[in-house]
This record gives sequence, structure tokens and C-alpha cells, in this order.
Amino acid sequence: MESCIFCRIARHETPAYMIAEDADTCCFLDIAMDAEGHMLIIPKKHVSSLLDCDEETLGHVLQMVKRVADHCTRCGYGGVNLLNASGTCAGQSVPHFHMHLLPRKSGDGMDTWPTLPGTSTPLLDVYNKLKME
Amino acid sequence: MESCIFCRIARHETPAYMIAEDADTCCFLDIAMDAEGHMLIIPKKHVSSLLDCDEETLGHVLQMVKRVADHCTRCGYGGVNLLNASGTCAGQSVPHFHMHLLPRKSGDGMDTWPTLPGTSTPLLDVYNKLKME
Repeated sequence: MESCIFCRIARHETPAYMIAEDADTCCFLDIAMDAEGHMLIIPKKHVSSLLDCDEETLGHVLQMVKRVADHCTRCGYGGVNLLNASGTCAGQSVPHFHMHLLPRKSGDGMDTWPTLPGTSTPLLDVYNKLKME
Repeated sequence: MESCIFCRIARHETPAYMIAEDADTCCFLDIAMDAEGHMLIIPKKHVSSLLDCDEETLGHVLQMVKRVADHCTRCGYGGVNLLNASGTCAGQSVPHFHMHLLPRKSGDGMDTWPTLPGTSTPLLDVYNKLKME
């Protein structure tokens, strides 16, 4: 998509610190400077979010996520966090499917679990609403 | 694994509100009561985290994530968040690979992006450290 910043990065029309790339996906540093090594993994094909991502493209993205996660462990990290927002109501800012990857180390002082609001809805009610047939 | 709580849930030896299940994966409600609809998607096979997950199992997990996310939209949600911690240093509490899925709606008042510490390490330095060949 012409105006999409992530499509432009995937086409090398907009510069990015490209950590890894293959025919279908790429991984580059997030410019937010909010955590050292914060990366984004995207499909090169324009897909808005997980919700409109076909299975093949999702497979490609997750192969790259796994490759990069394994690479992080070889670079001295002990783990990773993955984060994804699909849909503007979920906090997605750029409408091109992207997985955030944060390399982690013991003692890095980061707490990557969000502050959630809590709920008083009984689990049984949620179950009855969401159970798949 | 005998003592693993998620293995026990997958084998139906420990009760859980099971939202969906297939031969290789299952999806059940998290009991934390921290966000309405908070679910966990796991492989039935014991895999500690993304870091030791084989490609086939990862594919199965992601198919289930996608199925459940699509189902959430049919249940009136507008989007989802995915969260994963791989490794104790990343905040992983149960050592059986699991993806958190949070169904989201406009105006649900949730902010699922974690508070990150910021970094002053230049992106070029991070790039030089992490670039894959």
C-alpha cells in the first residue's frame, strides 16, 4: 500500500534498522526508544492485522518471530516478550500487522505485563458467552 | 509433564473453562480475573516456551490463536491483544508455552501497552549488536 509506512519500510523506500529479512517478512528496530532491542516483525504483504491475516502469511510471520527470538538467545538474552495489538480498539497504531518483540535479560528491570483493570464478571458467564462450538 | 498445570488442563485432569480445543491445542479462560475474556492458548504437547517450540507446534498454536481471534470478532469484540512471555527473565510464570489473548472493544478503558523503561542506547549500536547475517 503506497501510503503505509511499514509497506514503505518493507520495500526499502523508508530507512529502517533492518535486523532480518526474507522473501515474505522483515524485522526492524522500533524507533520508539522505549526498550533496548525493541523490534517489529511484519509481513511484506499489506495485511491490516491478525484479524485479516491469511494462514500462510501468519505462518511466515511466526517463522520470523521464532528465528529472531532464537537469535536473541544467541546474542546473550535469556528470553523475549511478544506483544500484538490487532484493531484500533486494541491500541494498534499502524494499520499493518506487526508483532513487537522485546529481548529480555535477568535483572533488566523491565515489567512488560500491562496493568489490567480487573473484572468482576464470573468466569462462567464469560465462558457461556465465548465458548466455541 | 505430570506436574505441569497446563499439561493437566490439556489432559482434562484439572478443570478449566475450555473455550476451544483441537487435537494439538486448547484455549481456556485465565483465572486471574484481570480482564474480561482473558484467555490462554497452549499446545497440548509440553513445550516450555517459544524458545523451544518446534515449527509444527508453533503453527498449531497460531492457527488456534487466529481461530479464537476471529471468533471474538463474531462475539462483538473489535480486536484483540496478544501477549507472550518466553523465559522466566521475561516474566513467564508457568513454564508451558502459552499465548495470552485479550478480547478488546472500543471504550473498554483498557491500556494493554506496558510501561517500558526507555533506552538511551543509540539504535545504530543496537542494530550492530543484533543484526542477523
